[in-house]
Amino acid sequence: MSTQQPDPQAGAAVKAADRAHVFHSWSAQGLVDPLAVAGAEGSYFWDYDGNRYLDFSSQLVNTNIGHQHPKVVAAVQEQAARLCTIAPGFAVDVRSEAARLIAERTPGDLDKVFFTNGGAEAVENAVRMARLHTGRTKVLSAYRSYHGATAAAINLTGDPRRWPSDTASAGVVHFWGPYLYRSHFHATTEEQECERALAHLEEVVAFEGPQTVAAIILETIVGTAGILVPPAGYLAGVREICDRYGIVFVLDEVMAGFGRTGEWFAADHWRVTPDLLTFAKGVNSGYVPLGGVAISAEIAATFDRRPYPGGLTYSGHPLACASAVATINAMAEEGIVENAARIGESVLGPGLRELAERHPSVGEVRGLGVFWALELVKDRVTREPLVPYNASGEAAAPMGAFAAACKKAGLWPFVNMNRTHVVPPCTVTEAEAKEGLAALDEALTVADRYTV
Amino acid sequence: MSTQQPDPQAGAAVKAADRAHVFHSWSAQGLVDPLAVAGAEGSYFWDYDGNRYLDFSSQLVNTNIGHQHPKVVAAVQEQAARLCTIAPGFAVDVRSEAARLIAERTPGDLDKVFFTNGGAEAVENAVRMARLHTGRTKVLSAYRSYHGATAAAINLTGDPRRWPSDTASAGVVHFWGPYLYRSHFHATTEEQECERALAHLEEVVAFEGPQTVAAIILETIVGTAGILVPPAGYLAGVREICDRYGIVFVLDEVMAGFGRTGEWFAADHWRVTPDLLTFAKGVNSGYVPLGGVAISAEIAATFDRRPYPGGLTYSGHPLACASAVATINAMAEEGIVENAARIGESVLGPGLRELAERHPSVGEVRGLGVFWALELVKDRVTREPLVPYNASGEAAAPMGAFAAACKKAGLWPFVNMNRTHVVPPCTVTEAEAKEGLAALDEALTVADRYTV
Repeated sequence: MSTQQPDPQAGAAVKAADRAHVFHSWSAQGLVDPLAVAGAEGSYFWDYDGNRYLDFSSQLVNTNIGHQHPKVVAAVQEQAARLCTIAPGFAVDVRSEAARLIAERTPGDLDKVFFTNGGAEAVENAVRMARLHTGRTKVLSAYRSYHGATAAAINLTGDPRRWPSDTASAGVVHFWGPYLYRSHFHATTEEQECERALAHLEEVVAFEGPQTVAAIILETIVGTAGILVPPAGYLAGVREICDRYGIVFVLDEVMAGFGRTGEWFAADHWRVTPDLLTFAKGVNSGYVPLGGVAISAEIAATFDRRPYPGGLTYSGHPLACASAVATINAMAEEGIVENAARIGESVLGPGLRELAERHPSVGEVRGLGVFWALELVKDRVTREPLVPYNASGEAAAPMGAFAAACKKAGLWPFVNMNRTHVVPPCTVTEAEAKEGLAALDEALTVADRYTV
Repeated sequence: MSTQQPDPQAGAAVKAADRAHVFHSWSAQGLVDPLAVAGAEGSYFWDYDGNRYLDFSSQLVNTNIGHQHPKVVAAVQEQAARLCTIAPGFAVDVRSEAARLIAERTPGDLDKVFFTNGGAEAVENAVRMARLHTGRTKVLSAYRSYHGATAAAINLTGDPRRWPSDTASAGVVHFWGPYLYRSHFHATTEEQECERALAHLEEVVAFEGPQTVAAIILETIVGTAGILVPPAGYLAGVREICDRYGIVFVLDEVMAGFGRTGEWFAADHWRVTPDLLTFAKGVNSGYVPLGGVAISAEIAATFDRRPYPGGLTYSGHPLACASAVATINAMAEEGIVENAARIGESVLGPGLRELAERHPSVGEVRGLGVFWALELVKDRVTREPLVPYNASGEAAAPMGAFAAACKKAGLWPFVNMNRTHVVPPCTVTEAEAKEGLAALDEALTVADRYTV
């Protein structure tokens, strides 16, 4: 691990310049106090003060191959020397090859790829395709979801980040997905939850009017809103509802795709093929901004003679595509997807369940691959969350204390509401996973103090 | 100029893979016939068949420093070796420095920068900021405009690409901007056009209800919709209307910014300071996807204690920011902005006007720096466009023939409706500009055949 010498002065300068000129996402600017990062490698990053963190958040759940993978770094450097940028209208070797490698891995006949710069734009374009393909307007999405922050994407989102940008007229209808631990359907078993969630969705479709519904969009496994793994028959059931009513089925794999769940796509766990699949993050671990939509033959055919009315200057950006080619090839060559599956099954899953046994603050453990959540509660019996829904300030203090304890133990956590997500790179080693579990063990003793 | 040996077989393979798997922007997929590009340098790019093109489109008007600028390529390679990606929540040297360099150049007190992946997301976020800052909903934009293709951005857009994605409920009201050659206001002089365009805008504001209008958004110089340079007092007049009614003034400099007009920002020509300024393209010539919003102190203050509810995984992406730092420094060191001004004033302006004298198909020449349009007409007296508004297929054939003639003459043109835009890199040399003018001269003889 090559960390540099501590240099607090340099760190202070970086931070001062940041505070003078950088406007931060999702933040009150006057309260932002960012850690200045000096470098990163593999599963770790470090600051200017000599602190090193095990990255159990994969940044924003995007560095699936870890930081600074040498093959991807080399590919970016080589492509930079060859051709940094070219307009989307041309054909370019790396764009063609990235599309081919993605199409080879996406389920079923999703064999055409429309490239974007990230996940939000992927969702925007999927919605546009679905609306034009069906001639219908409404899109159904889940209350517990995150789909991006551009206008259409943020309206589809179910979490509170939607509220300030919400337009009641966006043509979006929210429904409830399966989530047995806090069942909206008063279910007590997985089978019941699945059946009732499907009945609920079908009733929403019926009352909205099937002929008005362009698409149903779902994260295959709900990400930021809770790592909600759907029960066995759910996605197949949604597929069936879509087929019955001519509704486009969109799976959002921006967070779950490209190895995170121990398969190339989360949909592979249930062998479900959507009509459109959105991706970003893991496709190239975010080394260069990239996202896209994989498109079924039927929807692609809609735009065979009729122009597709969407685009962007950097669609299929050569540098981004070159990094995707290198990432996908490295993941295949090095068995990185298999590593994620193995670590999930043999280290993280058992380890997290073991923590749950000893820590009263852990209400539920759920996940797959390197995509796990610990749901923290005040009381395991009532399941009252450790902090209320959308809490901030004092009300959120218990989770703040937990996060601070993680950092003190050398682990950078992903925290959302009353949950911590355990989302290290897919390249995480067994030793690193165990190191992370030990840090979580320490931090959970802090969370335990807030239990009844 | 280092071009490689022709290799038609390799080109055919690239193209075949593209047609198998790449879904193209703004196109009927079955009719797409992309040129396979093998490489690029400076003002030129080339295919696999031994053809080299003088890039008078700067791709999509983004390669302001030309292709493969060695300083920017080196910066991308060095940053790739140091740190490809890090989440937006951290402070990073290159992000801080990019923000500082941009803030140093933006007009007035636009000193905070929110980074996005491109122009559309910049516009989306500017609109969100304006709406939350004012507590109002409506945004006024020009009929002749392009602002991007995500939901809010495409609704703001005035050109026909809006139609398939238009939602009447998006809170957008379109107005007419100044355009003397085809005056919406029956004006005959620049002064009259300016005065009437302002009166029109003020009347629209009055009838929409000033207290309902969050923002007026304008491209400082309208780009794809016609390179419409505003008359002298127009932008100052809009600024005044905004001030009078507490409306946020957004200038979209995605295409006009970073040297294109012979100033760092087009707003500098008229010393106008908006409240928000969107940028992308020229900020790093598109070597890595990047865009952003520069924010006034007053609007930034709105989000000092109240969280700004927007973000994206790759906000302030290190690789993108490193390329912006290198681009801005290279532009400053090498006098690239000054070069654009000089080429416009002493070569392109006079050269295009000279072409207009000899070619009856040229109705008007207008522009600044390396940002020019030739508006082609059937008849200079009636000003009937060479092809109708939004023509396609046979009706657009004259512009197709013109574009083909440009390519045959070794020039890659930017064509939109009945116009060709003359938008080479800001680094274009006098000799290259003259080479381009000679190619246009040849191609215009083809356009002339369609005149009365």
